[in-house]
Amino acid sequence: MSLRIIATGGTFDKHYDEIAGQLGFGASHLPQVIARARITADVVLEELPLLDSLEMQDADRQRVLVSCRSATQRGIVIVHGTDTMQLTAQVLGQAALASTVVLTGAMIPYEIANSDALFNFGFACGVAQVLPPGVYVAMNGQVFAWNKVAKNRSAGVFEQV
Amino acid sequence: MSLRIIATGGTFDKHYDEIAGQLGFGASHLPQVIARARITADVVLEELPLLDSLEMQDADRQRVLVSCRSATQRGIVIVHGTDTMQLTAQVLGQAALASTVVLTGAMIPYEIANSDALFNFGFACGVAQVLPPGVYVAMNGQVFAWNKVAKNRSAGVFEQV
Amino acid sequence: MSLRIIATGGTFDKHYDEIAGQLGFGASHLPQVIARARITADVVLEELPLLDSLEMQDADRQRVLVSCRSATQRGIVIVHGTDTMQLTAQVLGQAALASTVVLTGAMIPYEIANSDALFNFGFACGVAQVLPPGVYVAMNGQVFAWNKVAKNRSAGVFEQV
Amino acid sequence: MSLRIIATGGTFDKHYDEIAGQLGFGASHLPQVIARARITADVVLEELPLLDSLEMQDADRQRVLVSCRSATQRGIVIVHGTDTMQLTAQVLGQAALASTVVLTGAMIPYEIANSDALFNFGFACGVAQVLPPGVYVAMNGQVFAWNKVAKNRSAGVFEQV
Repeated sequence: MSLRIIATGGTFDKHYDEIAGQLGFGASHLPQVIARARITADVVLEELPLLDSLEMQDADRQRVLVSCRSATQRGIVIVHGTDTMQLTAQVLGQAALASTVVLTGAMIPYEIANSDALFNFGFACGVAQVLPPGVYVAMNGQVFAWNKVAKNRSAGVFEQV
Repeated sequence: MSLRIIATGGTFDKHYDEIAGQLGFGASHLPQVIARARITADVVLEELPLLDSLEMQDADRQRVLVSCRSATQRGIVIVHGTDTMQLTAQVLGQAALASTVVLTGAMIPYEIANSDALFNFGFACGVAQVLPPGVYVAMNGQVFAWNKVAKNRSAGVFEQV
Repeated sequence: MSLRIIATGGTFDKHYDEIAGQLGFGASHLPQVIARARITADVVLEELPLLDSLEMQDADRQRVLVSCRSATQRGIVIVHGTDTMQLTAQVLGQAALASTVVLTGAMIPYEIANSDALFNFGFACGVAQVLPPGVYVAMNGQVFAWNKVAKNRSAGVFEQV
Repeated sequence: MSLRIIATGGTFDKHYDEIAGQLGFGASHLPQVIARARITADVVLEELPLLDSLEMQDADRQRVLVSCRSATQRGIVIVHGTDTMQLTAQVLGQAALASTVVLTGAMIPYEIANSDALFNFGFACGVAQVLPPGVYVAMNGQVFAWNKVAKNRSAGVFEQV
């Protein structure tokens, strides 16, 4: 089947800028991640502006919604910051999309040791092909319904609510 | 939900022995992989003898079948060598198991640069929770039925047959 | 011969805190780095408080000087932040120490992809055993005298001045 | 100062071939290693045929000697397999070269987790700029004279003899 990957930034895609001495955004890692995964299914990557999800505004979430609406793929994986992932999930969940939309992200950037990014991306690519249409959050090796999930920030994990 | 992970070796788990100067098997990487994935679902890891799948005998595949039969989890992920993954899938597929069993592996060992191991493991952990009972192979970002898959060795990818 | 390694923090030793979502300091990576290097020479690691070198005060540099003075090893490698490495080098250079002291660091933290940390540490461990007594900065594959070096911050490299 | 890097293969430069399922030689990692090290000194890389050092013949060692003789740089680093590094060191050591030649390698390939390759390469690049003319082996964080070194294969370390 076919998959659309939508990059929106977040911890997953942060990059260390050695001149500034801090983490920010450069080119997305997703082209490299997709190649590394050796995916033979049809995959289309769409890169939206890469943002820290704490800085996402309503307009940014609407842009994600527009991308999902216009997608021709039945499965969509959105790589997103963890801090407001549930807010974007709510915007998408209330839109009654016909596709299976899975939001995922990472607690540790892809380019930093011990990152969960590649695991989470694989997990999301799997369940996006198998779950019925709807909007889901996939983190910590679990699938959550869009309206029953919250990030526990002090523990650093997603929980059902 | 709960997951059983069964380690059987294969390229995924190969380890470079610096004294022998070659790849072989030491301790499984899966405890580290599971911790890195920050899985909050219930996960049990069972380590069978780690083997190159070209060296697996009937008795080795029967041992995997016994593990699946005795598992109390509804979802099972088997980390397996790619060369005979389809043979083990056939043994399990013909056994009419009540659980969802997903075999996966890697083209590049987990500890080598650019490895697909963590992606494949995440993918398998996802679909093992969502697919109906049955036996599946998950490689190259796709799910294959146990009796409709083959490894194309010259291309290094799994294909539907 | 014998080497003393003095950890003072800096970019080399920064660690990503997944709860805070930013780089800071945890345990030093140097025990792991030294093991990975398979050094058979006598090596002693001394961990001073790990600091961003922009936050180092005079008292912090004096503490480094005290460590160098009291060291019994002929070669000393100091892992230090790059932004004020030359200032600490000046404090040590004016102290007429009897040992060979080499300051090094990294532009990219050890735990981030494409880091120069391990190369720089190896370089410093080498020249600290071979150079005559004195204070040096080792960065960018070059050795600089303590009083003839500056970091070019916009280019991200050390230069002779 | 200027450095010549001569790639001859060895464990340092081994690459995992995912179709063959084994370690061999592809393109050298050294262009990437040199870029990662952010070296601002003049560096020239010369790639000789990449060989497992157990398969090196006299003609291969003579080719290394020819490269060293024709080099215009004062410092030369040779990346070499560890098993016969001392034999090549002897060929070079008896040739009375005018430059400083440092042989190094790795116990774990550069592309495998926990590799010593980058440390060893940094160490060698440092001492090659500082040692007087002669031929040396740099492994395990130590410098050895060409005629006073042997690899202890069972322990996996280089020792003075």
